[in-house]
Amino acid sequence: MSLATVTVATEPPYPVRIGPAALEALPNAVASADRVALLADERVLDLHGASLAALGEVPTLAIGGGEDAKTLGKLGAVLEFLAAAGLARSSTLITFGGGTLADLGGLAASLFKRGMQVVHAPTTLLAQVDASVGGKTAINLSAGKNLAGTFHQPAEVLCDTSTLATLPAAERASGLGEVVKTALIGGEADLALLEAQADGLLAGDAAALAATVTSCVTVKARVVACDPTERGPRRGLNLGHTFAHAIEHVAGYGAVPHGVAVAAGIGLALRASAELGLLTDPALEARIRALLERLGLPADLSALRQSSGLALPVDELMAGFAHDKKGAVGRPEFVLVSGAGALELGVTLEVDLLQSLLA
Amino acid sequence: MSLATVTVATEPPYPVRIGPAALEALPNAVASADRVALLADERVLDLHGASLAALGEVPTLAIGGGEDAKTLGKLGAVLEFLAAAGLARSSTLITFGGGTLADLGGLAASLFKRGMQVVHAPTTLLAQVDASVGGKTAINLSAGKNLAGTFHQPAEVLCDTSTLATLPAAERASGLGEVVKTALIGGEADLALLEAQADGLLAGDAAALAATVTSCVTVKARVVACDPTERGPRRGLNLGHTFAHAIEHVAGYGAVPHGVAVAAGIGLALRASAELGLLTDPALEARIRALLERLGLPADLSALRQSSGLALPVDELMAGFAHDKKGAVGRPEFVLVSGAGALELGVTLEVDLLQSLLA
Repeated sequence: MSLATVTVATEPPYPVRIGPAALEALPNAVASADRVALLADERVLDLHGASLAALGEVPTLAIGGGEDAKTLGKLGAVLEFLAAAGLARSSTLITFGGGTLADLGGLAASLFKRGMQVVHAPTTLLAQVDASVGGKTAINLSAGKNLAGTFHQPAEVLCDTSTLATLPAAERASGLGEVVKTALIGGEADLALLEAQADGLLAGDAAALAATVTSCVTVKARVVACDPTERGPRRGLNLGHTFAHAIEHVAGYGAVPHGVAVAAGIGLALRASAELGLLTDPALEARIRALLERLGLPADLSALRQSSGLALPVDELMAGFAHDKKGAVGRPEFVLVSGAGALELGVTLEVDLLQSLLA
Repeated sequence: MSLATVTVATEPPYPVRIGPAALEALPNAVASADRVALLADERVLDLHGASLAALGEVPTLAIGGGEDAKTLGKLGAVLEFLAAAGLARSSTLITFGGGTLADLGGLAASLFKRGMQVVHAPTTLLAQVDASVGGKTAINLSAGKNLAGTFHQPAEVLCDTSTLATLPAAERASGLGEVVKTALIGGEADLALLEAQADGLLAGDAAALAATVTSCVTVKARVVACDPTERGPRRGLNLGHTFAHAIEHVAGYGAVPHGVAVAAGIGLALRASAELGLLTDPALEARIRALLERLGLPADLSALRQSSGLALPVDELMAGFAHDKKGAVGRPEFVLVSGAGALELGVTLEVDLLQSLLA
């Protein structure tokens, strides 16, 4: 299977290469750097480090993945590592692991000497379809998720789909939450493609995974290129995320995988859209619910409460909206849906409606 | 005395207002923010907090000034403060203090929710003539000064020259180092103006201070506007700084005030320029030495070693160049001088020449 390449048309543009041997392109991706360093998930390095052999010896920092990676302390460790490795503005940092590694490494790269290049080699479905493309970087604060970060586009992204074979089932499910979101944003063709490939995705079929990643990256690249710093249409990519961030905040970071929280958030956004009479296609809500359930994802809060064993109390979720990054003070903003590929951005919801949705 | 206004023509442009009552413009500078918070130097807040009365009650974080403010831990404290104060992307942080407060607060503002506005109200000569204009933000790493940061232009800068009256003499001397650098970069007119006002500056004369700040900000605004992210001509503003950063690193941050290290760095850059035959005006080196000495600043390393009581060993200074931010790996870059207002950028110096300069 050859590599697919999607170009993200930011300034400058960069390629996302997708396929079962994408890591072979890594030496070429860092060829212009005067020095290279590697930030890797220690588990991924054990499983797939051999795929990086062509790089030769490079200074490496291996850390645990997951939300624990996204702390101020870890950011400091990466920055000191880059300094100790003697990197310059003209060097490149490679991240190798899930979305949290890309978020953390991307932030460190954007800050080190006020900006050096980063190349992402994402190894989870979630990171390949979402986190590693678009340049958002972040760490968490005690008050909320992703509250400190930058926009820093990578120089290249290599989505090696062969790394997805070793992905734990829960991680794959988490990625599928973002896949559903992206297909819903993309429109009818993306949604139909995803429905046709759902069984292949669940079975870990290589062709289905590569096709799905390519489809999602194509949608995301289109949105990011026209709005790299999220002042306008890019806000649509936050579909389900205002709900998801409140869920993750209340659950404790890492307790509910991000994509699983997003799945429930998509269900909630569709419910709100239906309640407000926004849906022009009345069958869409049931269709997405069915797709989420088929992929093993919660389509609402009761399903999430059941599968996670967490109470997720309404009042705590309401308070969790306080740190939505997009809205103004005290006014969290939601992305709602009128149809496949048709969104309503920056919607403020009444407290009564929110409380009934979260009940 | 009325306010002078210099516009920095970045995208978007922003005003720098200069004069003895500039803080009166603060409520207007934050009028469009949905919420405001204040990061203040605790000493400055004691001395000049009354000048902020028109703001009303705002959430305030008061910290110590100086290089101790520029740590990762302090950055975390400011970010958590912004979250606890309930700020949004549409809010504004005011910094009130010296350059280290502007560096730290500007960085926190650029990271919080991936970017909120900052208004700087600098209260030291160094911050008014240099640090608060141009959007460079930073913290220090253990490996070197300003090694992590962003470019984040402020929304407005208010240089209230009346706050300079309470500036300790050592702080004022430090600011004068950047003043000499800026005049040398600006050209003959700026240099002549500075020479004419040197006595007034030393005496703390209000008109001399306001005129000097205005002249320096005008030079800096011109350079920054044509190169906001330091890819080209803005590198000229680093005149003396590759030397100065090595000096500060070896001395231990805070042991030699930044502007004092810059003064010695200017002397070293002129010496290197003369050694390499770059100076088209052979009298310039002696003229700048005389000006530095008249302002109570060291014009070379032997003067700095004497005034500071520090050994500043040659081998340690050589090693301190390793973390120059501008050069490629292992190749520190220097700004040299061919005449008033005429610089040579990106010069690499031979090890032999460097060692003899530092001896």
